[in-house]
This record gives sequence, structure tokens and C-alpha cells, in this order.
Amino acid sequence: MFRSEINAGLLKSSVDTVSVLVDECKVRLDEEGLSIKAVDPANVGMVELDIPAESFESYEADDELLGLNLVRFEDIVGMANKGDTIVMELDEETRKLTIRIDGLRYTLSLIDPDSIHQEPNVPDLDLPGDIDVAGRELRRGVKAAGMVSDHMAFGVSEQSSDGASTGSTDVSDDGTFYMRAEGDTDDVRVDLGEDDLISLDTGGEEAESLFSLDYLDSMAKAIPNDAAVAVEVGDDYPVKMNFELAGGDAHVTYLLAPRIENE
Amino acid sequence: MFRSEINAGLLKSSVDTVSVLVDECKVRLDEEGLSIKAVDPANVGMVELDIPAESFESYEADDELLGLNLVRFEDIVGMANKGDTIVMELDEETRKLTIRIDGLRYTLSLIDPDSIHQEPNVPDLDLPGDIDVAGRELRRGVKAAGMVSDHMAFGVSEQSSDGASTGSTDVSDDGTFYMRAEGDTDDVRVDLGEDDLISLDTGGEEAESLFSLDYLDSMAKAIPNDAAVAVEVGDDYPVKMNFELAGGDAHVTYLLAPRIENE
Amino acid sequence: MFRSEINAGLLKSSVDTVSVLVDECKVRLDEEGLSIKAVDPANVGMVELDIPAESFESYEADDELLGLNLVRFEDIVGMANKGDTIVMELDEETRKLTIRIDGLRYTLSLIDPDSIHQEPNVPDLDLPGDIDVAGRELRRGVKAAGMVSDHMAFGVSEQSSDGASTGSTDVSDDGTFYMRAEGDTDDVRVDLGEDDLISLDTGGEEAESLFSLDYLDSMAKAIPNDAAVAVEVGDDYPVKMNFELAGGDAHVTYLLAPRIENE
Repeated sequence: MFRSEINAGLLKSSVDTVSVLVDECKVRLDEEGLSIKAVDPANVGMVELDIPAESFESYEADDELLGLNLVRFEDIVGMANKGDTIVMELDEETRKLTIRIDGLRYTLSLIDPDSIHQEPNVPDLDLPGDIDVAGRELRRGVKAAGMVSDHMAFGVSEQSSDGASTGSTDVSDDGTFYMRAEGDTDDVRVDLGEDDLISLDTGGEEAESLFSLDYLDSMAKAIPNDAAVAVEVGDDYPVKMNFELAGGDAHVTYLLAPRIENE
Repeated sequence: MFRSEINAGLLKSSVDTVSVLVDECKVRLDEEGLSIKAVDPANVGMVELDIPAESFESYEADDELLGLNLVRFEDIVGMANKGDTIVMELDEETRKLTIRIDGLRYTLSLIDPDSIHQEPNVPDLDLPGDIDVAGRELRRGVKAAGMVSDHMAFGVSEQSSDGASTGSTDVSDDGTFYMRAEGDTDDVRVDLGEDDLISLDTGGEEAESLFSLDYLDSMAKAIPNDAAVAVEVGDDYPVKMNFELAGGDAHVTYLLAPRIENE
Repeated sequence: MFRSEINAGLLKSSVDTVSVLVDECKVRLDEEGLSIKAVDPANVGMVELDIPAESFESYEADDELLGLNLVRFEDIVGMANKGDTIVMELDEETRKLTIRIDGLRYTLSLIDPDSIHQEPNVPDLDLPGDIDVAGRELRRGVKAAGMVSDHMAFGVSEQSSDGASTGSTDVSDDGTFYMRAEGDTDDVRVDLGEDDLISLDTGGEEAESLFSLDYLDSMAKAIPNDAAVAVEVGDDYPVKMNFELAGGDAHVTYLLAPRIENE
């Protein structure tokens, strides 16, 4: 059994974080809330989304596992205005999901969950670099990198990079979080010191990992500009990005496998 | 002879209601005003547009029948800002229409009216269902239906549909106007009770007709969000939609033939 | 050596005036400032851009000649917000240009200037017609002409054209600057009298020249709406358009060769 009411803006931004990676997913429901774990078909990018029961306007659910067509679901949710309430109800006989938005009723067929790619286990990693950065800074670095290459590095350094700072930005000696990309002729580099970040802990190490811009670009688009993103970076390790939506109403974790450079 | 001045916004929204159905049309002018009747090449959708003489800023016309290239005419009118005055004058010698917009003069060749599809006779229908609904509600139903099918039904029912109402909407016992579409796997339904409509008269009957979404979508785009649309619905009958532009300065009637479902 | 700081909005609008004509160009630097002269591959349209040293927030340069990929450079400048400061510095060893925008550092490879099309000599012309007109009026005439043809005429006339004025516009006897285009069936004409222009001097002659709309359209897009454009027109002569960006911080001259009509 599942019946809930939720703010349309929260549901939309939540679904977006998953749909940038996969077209269909398993949705787990229980009395704690709604959760989704998904990995893209190439096993490179993972997402974990949690919307706790108390973030809904109303919520009742027994343990359920639903198979959701995200493309279709996004279209439906897109019919709502930001402030609308979306009512979702599972018809247990037909196994269809009824979605109501202000007088509009959409009956959505669910997918057999067994036909959907298995849910990933998001690994626990203990990575040296630990940075809190604004969503807009990440987006900017990713966008700039896209001008010169199809992959980019995230890294932490104990020293500020020589000449990397503009006259107006003081990069402190406490280290730097950087994003950089090397193209055939041109390079891009963003150095963010303590003053540009919400918090910075380099772990006292130099660490850098390389990632596909395809994935980073998709993920960055789903991260709100004003989110505080907790980025964990290692040396040739996956990157982990944690953030919240709508002031804490939903929790999202991205994990992206590194691209190992062929030398 | 024909010479007139008209508000650009009024002329633009008027022309749009016709151009969604046809690329060229006959324009009738007489001392009463300007009128257009047109039917699309497949004879499925009709439009009737009237702009009375008093809706113009100035208006003088003898009986004239002009053949108008609407694609070209829309481009010209699109050069004006909403508050501009558009001056149109027929050059009787050259049979060209001079259109002036703030220092810009466009000389438009007219089409031989005999080469244009005949004007339709918009039939008088006495349909049971009689609903006044906001343009934005129609648009919304049409847009939602487009997610699951290429055709949709308009109908009236004496009872509110079971489970069709959300918790927040009280559908009264006085009946419902509904829009619905059935896809291969998913369904969409919008139920509008007395409280959601400007007025509702089901005629004491159940009636439903099916229409092509191609046409409904085009027509809905030309209906202003804030227009009160008088919808007349029957059982496997055409639908008639009457509305006004710019607070009554122009009158529009759409008539759309039903699509008979093959069983 | 070259090191400068400049407002992003000024740099962006300056670069746009050149990039509408060419994809790469030579940039001359000296203590007076930055200047670019370029002509399109067909030798039809020329541009001359000057940003004096005092328009920069800071500026230091020895005589330098740089080869710039404008497509790439525009993308980089596009990363900045309008109010940002862009820092450019030439690395004399690597001959690369470092561009810094608020924490972002882009290292741009320069092109060998010798591989770039030679800089044109913008000729001194003494043309009869001398008009100061708002950028938005030019754009409007060019856009309207595009509806009927792929070329258009600029001209000056001592008399106001018969019937060219609307009821609301008084074209004085002091002459007219006009833009006109003749299509296969339709014509467009914009007549601007003294009251519609910032200043008008017809030189006491009738003069008209025909131009390619491809070029005029590109140039018009790079002219700010609120710029006062000094247009010099002759009889089957090039047209010269001078204007300033950002209230005088940069000076631009366009020169466009006439298209001689085959009779």
C-alpha cells in the first residue's frame, strides 16, 4: 500500500537527480520513506536518493518495490507548477500508479522491477580530500572543462598552485581544491582555496582523479546552484558528491568511477 | 476600398487563430468589419473569425474579398510591438495591401481569392453539453493527453467520475466536464466539476466525442489562457469552441469534426 | 609583454563585432591599446575595432601581434558574467594567452599571425549621405528586408518619399534616409526623416547603394540597440558604419562593399 502527497518542486528536483543517469529504476517504499539506488548501464555513475517520510505532505506506505519509467514520470511531474501538491497512490490490484495534480489524473503502468538493472551497493570509501563547495562552482568548472576536453580531473593540493590565483583571489596556504582539463592545445584550471569553499580538508595529501565529462556534466546539471556539495576526492579513486535538495527534504549521493589514463 | 488602423496585439492574436489551421485564406471586408472563414485541407477543423469595425482604431471599407498569404502576413505583423498601431490600406489599382508599422512600409501582394479553398459553412448544432471553461484548463488537458495518445475525448457526465477527484477538489453532483485519453499502457483524465468551470450544463445526458490531438493542440495554442471558452459537446458529434480576444474585440469559433473510433 | 584587466561585458561586445565576420584575426597591441582590423574571406565586409588603453581596468603592453581563434575566445569570454573582470596575460615563452575569470584560468594557444588573412586597409571615403541613426532602427530595417529579399538598399533622398510616411510620422522636407528591399512579389521600405534620426545630412544628393543582407544582418546583430550609428552612404559605393560600445570604451567601424545589380 502506498499513498502520499508531496510538493511538486521537491519531487521534480529529486527525480532529476536520478533521470540524468538512468531511464528506469526501482523505487523502494517503506514507513521510513522513499529511496532509489541506481547505476548507469556502463556501471560508471551511481546515484542514491532518499526522501524521508517526513518530507512528504502526507505519507503512508507498506514495504513496496516499484519499477518506474523515469522518462514518462518526469513528463507527468513536469505538468505540475512548482507549488502544486502531487498525490501518488498505488492501485494494488492493477499495480498501476495513480498520479493526481490539481484535477488531472494520470494512470501510470509500472515496470516489472525484476526487469530493471540491479540496485548498486554504494561503497563506503575513506578518501583523503573532503571539500564543501557550492553547486554553482562545480557547474562552472565542469562547463569550462568541456571547452577543451571530454574528461577532467578533480584534485586536492596542499599548496596553492603557482600563478593559479587571480589578483583578486587569495589562495591560502591551507591548500586548494582544483578542477582541471587538458585539451590538445588549450588548458582549463579552476583553483578554489579556503576562501572560495564552504570547507576544505585536503587530508594532508596530494590526490587527483580523472573523470568522464559526460557523467560530470549530467550530474552537475542535477545539482542545485545553491546546494552545498560535500565532495570526497582521492588519488585515482571514485569521487563522491553528497548534497541535499529543498533545504534538506531529500538527500542525494553521486558516486562516479575514475577514468584511468592510458599512458 | 479599405483603410484601417488596428492595435498590433489584437491583429496578431486574431491572425494566429486562423493560421494554426490554414496557410492562406479569404478575408471578407464590409462596413460591419473584417471576417474570415476557413477550413483546413482535410476538412476536419474550421475557424470563423470576426473583428467588428468598432474594434479597429479607424476603419473604412467597401465590400471587398482579399486572398491572404497568412504565413507572410504573420511575419509582417510580428515586426510590430504589442502596443503599436498597424495601418492597412488596399491599393485598388495594383491590388496590393500596404501595411505600415511605425515608419516601416510593407507592400504585400494578394492572392487570387478564387485559387483559395472555399469558405466553409459553419453548421448550427444543438449539442447537449454546454460548458464555459478557462483557456488554460483546456490547454492543460490537451497537453496531458498528448503524453499518452494522439487522440482524446471531450465528454460530459451527470455524475462525478469515481475516484477522479483529488482530495482537494469537490466535484459536485451537478455533473462533470471531462477530457480523457487512453494510451497503450497509461491513461490521462481531467475531471472539471462546477467549481472548476465558469458554467456547466450537461443537458442531462452522458455525451462523449473523440478528437485528433493534432487539431486540438493547434487550436488550444491559439486560445488565450484567460479566455472563457464556451465549449459545446455532443455524443460522437463535432465540438464547438467559442471565445473572444482582447476583451471582446474579436470573436472566434472553432469547429472540430469527431474522430469515429474503429472497434 | 601584455597584461591587462578589462570588464567582461565590454570585451564580449567588442569581440562580437569582429567574430560576425571572421573566425580568426590578428590582434595588435601597443601602449595605445588593443586594435583589430579584419576582412571576411570574400573581401566584402571589413571591421576595425579599437579599445584604447584607458578603457581597460589596467593595461600594460609592448608592441605585440597575436593570432587569435575568435570562436574559442568567444566561448571563454562567455564564461564570465557581465560585471566580471577578465585578466589576460601573454606568456612570452610559450606564446600562450592566459585568461583568468574569477578563479578560472584558461590557457589559450595562439595562432601564427602569418597564417591569418592580411589586415585590410580601411579606405577613406567622402560619401554624400551622413546619417546618425539608432542601432535598433538599423536592425529593424534589416530584419524587415529579410522577409522579402537577400539584398537591400540604403539611400538618401532630398524629398520625403510619396506615401512612405504613416499618418503619425511627419517626414520633413529636409530629406530622408531610407532602407528598402524588393522581393519577387512584395516590397519593404523604411523611411526615416529628421525626426526619426539623431542627425541627417543628405549632402544635397540622391544616393543609393545595394548590399548583401547576409553581411548587413551579421553586422546589425553586433550593433547595440542603443548605439548611435554614424552611417555614410553614397551612390553604388560602400557603406560605412561607425559606432561606440559601452559609452565610448571601444570604437568600431564597419565597411561593406556594395553589390552591383546586374540589369
